[in-house]
Amino acid sequence: MSESALIQQMLAVVGRRPGVWAGIGDDAAVLDGDPPWLIAHDMLVEDVHFRWSTHSVPDVGHKALAVNLSDIAAMGGRPIAAIVGLASPRGAFGPREIRAMYQALEDLAAHTGCSIIGGDISRASETVIAITVIGKMAADVAPVMRTGARPGDAVCVTGPLGASAAGRELLEHPRPGAGSHDAALITAHRRPSPRLQFGTDLATGGATAMMDISDGLALDAHRLAIASGVWLDLELDRVPLADGVAQVAQHLGADPVIFASTSGEDYELLVTIDPSRISTVAVPLIRVGTVGAGPPGLHITRDGHPVHLPHLGWDHIG
Amino acid sequence: MSESALIQQMLAVVGRRPGVWAGIGDDAAVLDGDPPWLIAHDMLVEDVHFRWSTHSVPDVGHKALAVNLSDIAAMGGRPIAAIVGLASPRGAFGPREIRAMYQALEDLAAHTGCSIIGGDISRASETVIAITVIGKMAADVAPVMRTGARPGDAVCVTGPLGASAAGRELLEHPRPGAGSHDAALITAHRRPSPRLQFGTDLATGGATAMMDISDGLALDAHRLAIASGVWLDLELDRVPLADGVAQVAQHLGADPVIFASTSGEDYELLVTIDPSRISTVAVPLIRVGTVGAGPPGLHITRDGHPVHLPHLGWDHIG
Repeated sequence: MSESALIQQMLAVVGRRPGVWAGIGDDAAVLDGDPPWLIAHDMLVEDVHFRWSTHSVPDVGHKALAVNLSDIAAMGGRPIAAIVGLASPRGAFGPREIRAMYQALEDLAAHTGCSIIGGDISRASETVIAITVIGKMAADVAPVMRTGARPGDAVCVTGPLGASAAGRELLEHPRPGAGSHDAALITAHRRPSPRLQFGTDLATGGATAMMDISDGLALDAHRLAIASGVWLDLELDRVPLADGVAQVAQHLGADPVIFASTSGEDYELLVTIDPSRISTVAVPLIRVGTVGAGPPGLHITRDGHPVHLPHLGWDHIG
Repeated sequence: MSESALIQQMLAVVGRRPGVWAGIGDDAAVLDGDPPWLIAHDMLVEDVHFRWSTHSVPDVGHKALAVNLSDIAAMGGRPIAAIVGLASPRGAFGPREIRAMYQALEDLAAHTGCSIIGGDISRASETVIAITVIGKMAADVAPVMRTGARPGDAVCVTGPLGASAAGRELLEHPRPGAGSHDAALITAHRRPSPRLQFGTDLATGGATAMMDISDGLALDAHRLAIASGVWLDLELDRVPLADGVAQVAQHLGADPVIFASTSGEDYELLVTIDPSRISTVAVPLIRVGTVGAGPPGLHITRDGHPVHLPHLGWDHIG
């Protein structure tokens, strides 16, 4: 089952009662409040989202919180608090590991201005870390949903792509002779940075739709197009590559641009915005496409020619 | 490591920044708001908190939400929304099971006036369901913490105890010849009822401290005594037993009152309140003890004699 099929299953049975402004289907849910509250939840599972052979306890703590903070960033909010569920095999997490995990969570929380407010701990046969982040919009700023893209908008990203996947590749298949960007790529994979400042700047600066790029630019752009009900042109030749990504992709025999456009976990923001406002926001936006007129969907081109990608990105479920 | 040792580990590293009124250590965290917001998180893990041999998918969905709603009840709040993380083995949750799980969550959400607002789904080697519930206090009602018990308060529970543990015993060790209360005991175990109405009534009716009885009356009373820094007398001869619990306990060779006082998952509320107010609240409080003067801790008596219980209840972690 794909993520969109799952969301359809949920929507078929789930009702929305007072107090909820937006429920299932965006990076975070929105609760009524003045200003509105944002709720995001993501879990990391050992051997699905990380491996102990390539990630330390602090890496996993950082990443589990960062991916949730990224969902708050994608709405244009700021994080207030995070609550943490941690399940692990007997013996895997002693007092030293618990402390290291919470120190990593605390370090990122302190850096981003939120607080760890507790949680739950349990046994399990592998490590699962489930975090919910509660955020808030600034006064008089509306959350930026996936649904607001309009024909004529520019499609932009907030930074170069492919670093996380390249870093994972370097970790999982180490090769002799380190490249000059290897350490940065590995850090991008282990310690993603949520784009919170970019998110709040874009929410006040005219972004019409926004989401984080967690599962690959192409797949996430497809989701944004469907959520907004718009035709979205993605121009692969404009996709910015992080330093060192091309070499890793070439080593794999992959096209660097396709590698960077279909690999997940970069946690840059994908934004639609009136083109005239690109230069007015304090965010280094890189234009990668245009919202067009036409039936909803993603249309990929390269040097003006249509491109079909059989694999758009990473679906957690399928 | 015990739960209290874990909390000490967390508190040693975790800071509290603006927006958080109360963090780690109570049934729910409290965020600043007018009225305040409540955040609770509990996870259920297959073969730790439930077994598929004795629980259906809807049972697990109901229970996972109910235990979180119980934490909101224990603060005196009402639930607004729940966000759900679900990890399960490949093949275990198809579209039918996903739908059954979400239908059970929706049924309890509808019954308690909150909304399921999405979440995350992943693979794992066993089923893990991690839910965060966001609640709110009514206007001008303060959250009831564990810390407010005062000498002279009565110690009360909101209903008879032991049903859930007796139901689990009946499920795990079926015996010939059903007792007349077996079905009710099994339902108490599979489908606990969060005491939300009791919680809000007690918050407005003068409760000085409150928590839910998730891990056994004796263990939870000990935690409340330590959190409030009070001497707490628990009189075992006053502990109310659910119908049928005595027979199950006797079948196990256990003292029924000790069985009911040290077994978990009843999800009644444990309350301290000025004795003069017991008859004024619209909740059927059953007094089981008194907050006394003296050093902080739990003191258990039976028919006036001190009792030492080697095992106070169920610690999820140890």
